[in-house]
Amino acid sequence: MITEQTTRFDQLNIDLSDLEPTARSIFDTLAGHTSVRSYRPDPLPPGTVERLALAGQSASTSSNLQTYSIVAVEDPARKAQLSTLAGNQAMVRECPLFFVFCPDIYRLHYLTERQGREFGATYLEMFLLACVDTALVMQNVAVAAEAMGLGICMCGAIRNNPQDVIDLLALPRGVFALAGMCVGYPAATNEVKARLPLPSVLHREQYSDAALEESLVAYDRTMIDSGIYAGRQVQASASDNGTAPEYGWAEHTARRVSKPDTIAASTGLRENLRTVLEAHGWPFA
Amino acid sequence: MITEQTTRFDQLNIDLSDLEPTARSIFDTLAGHTSVRSYRPDPLPPGTVERLALAGQSASTSSNLQTYSIVAVEDPARKAQLSTLAGNQAMVRECPLFFVFCPDIYRLHYLTERQGREFGATYLEMFLLACVDTALVMQNVAVAAEAMGLGICMCGAIRNNPQDVIDLLALPRGVFALAGMCVGYPAATNEVKARLPLPSVLHREQYSDAALEESLVAYDRTMIDSGIYAGRQVQASASDNGTAPEYGWAEHTARRVSKPDTIAASTGLRENLRTVLEAHGWPFA
Repeated sequence: MITEQTTRFDQLNIDLSDLEPTARSIFDTLAGHTSVRSYRPDPLPPGTVERLALAGQSASTSSNLQTYSIVAVEDPARKAQLSTLAGNQAMVRECPLFFVFCPDIYRLHYLTERQGREFGATYLEMFLLACVDTALVMQNVAVAAEAMGLGICMCGAIRNNPQDVIDLLALPRGVFALAGMCVGYPAATNEVKARLPLPSVLHREQYSDAALEESLVAYDRTMIDSGIYAGRQVQASASDNGTAPEYGWAEHTARRVSKPDTIAASTGLRENLRTVLEAHGWPFA
Repeated sequence: MITEQTTRFDQLNIDLSDLEPTARSIFDTLAGHTSVRSYRPDPLPPGTVERLALAGQSASTSSNLQTYSIVAVEDPARKAQLSTLAGNQAMVRECPLFFVFCPDIYRLHYLTERQGREFGATYLEMFLLACVDTALVMQNVAVAAEAMGLGICMCGAIRNNPQDVIDLLALPRGVFALAGMCVGYPAATNEVKARLPLPSVLHREQYSDAALEESLVAYDRTMIDSGIYAGRQVQASASDNGTAPEYGWAEHTARRVSKPDTIAASTGLRENLRTVLEAHGWPFA
């Protein structure tokens, strides 16, 4: 439970005092989230893996299909291998528990065969449904972990080397690693990171980009003032120098999206994602 | 806050009494989730839309790209149109607030042009990242709403008619409706629905289907005993009769997956999803 920290609502001076105390503390937990990238080696309380997984299973699931699996990795050697595959991030080695969240239609294939039927959900919708439901599970696990005072960091870089992860975790046809999650006691915590101003993200009745430009200017100011990009400017083309003035979220993000290798350590490697997934039983028709 | 109700942990006789009270109430909220399909017309407290959206924005987002938008629909006429497009579900009309969660790379395209760059993230990874991040937001909104005593129901059927929803909500190129969510005060609540036994979903170190068959037998028993399939047997082929004995989750799910039209009211319509999304600026390479 993060109550001692400034939450997003505090930052924006939004008064939540009318909420009853339990609701308030849930809002504080959600709005106090920061990704933890450095972990203490302390072991987790007994039963943590099961409790978190059950909290995950409590999320909504489309048509009760439950098209997901969770692989809990605690073995240091396997975590080290996953770290190497996922952009060489030290946090994956450091954290005592690394969850891998997997869309899973292996189970549905097993079922249809068991019941003497033929699997017919062979188009993009099945892939999308499974990925969404897996992400819902993942967010519930994150909230539950943070409620316990644990830190988490999601890890999309697990998709950098999809086939190697399939092999390492013995994922059968129809199962792949959508995202990982480090779990453990924080060795250090960051302040809550500002997000885009709400008017650029929340639309009423219909989509409108009327607030976009103003929001970008304001967000750039906030992010530049936070010092987050100091020494971290991305070089996307040869003419980019490393100390552009007024380098904010807009420029940082535009550079990264123009050269996707810079989004994560090795996003370029994810270009083979579609090929691997298709060969592993996932439909995109 | 759902404390008066039986949660998943209660159902499974898992003792959480060692958790401190706030953590405990968060676990109770997560594990007490049930989808609400019938709503009272009562208006929501002022500021609810913004608070829920801010709770959503607090979720992790890959590389801080924030590739999502939320459209809040409260206008009865527009909700009625969305209801018609989303499998004619009465709950979409009934609920006072219907959120539509949209993966959004329009903003990234805008940014790259604004900064004089060229959008380069033209493969499946971008689509997947945006969908996952949108789903994380959605689950945070669900948790926050339930913390306030509101009920929610996610609505994947919003994907039944992707182009019509794009038109109705004026979604620009690079934005589509991934899922909807009804929000409101429950007119009726269901018991927490049992999920697959944990050993079939949670794997240690590597994926294993060793517990699958046993889990399916046990889950079928639980679901049959709950009476959930009484009068709701799916007819997937001409020889299926409507009163198969021992019709449980395995048979129900196998029939639905064998004939995807039966997964939702009109899932068959979602076969055009890929075509519509590709034409609307989403990459699948």
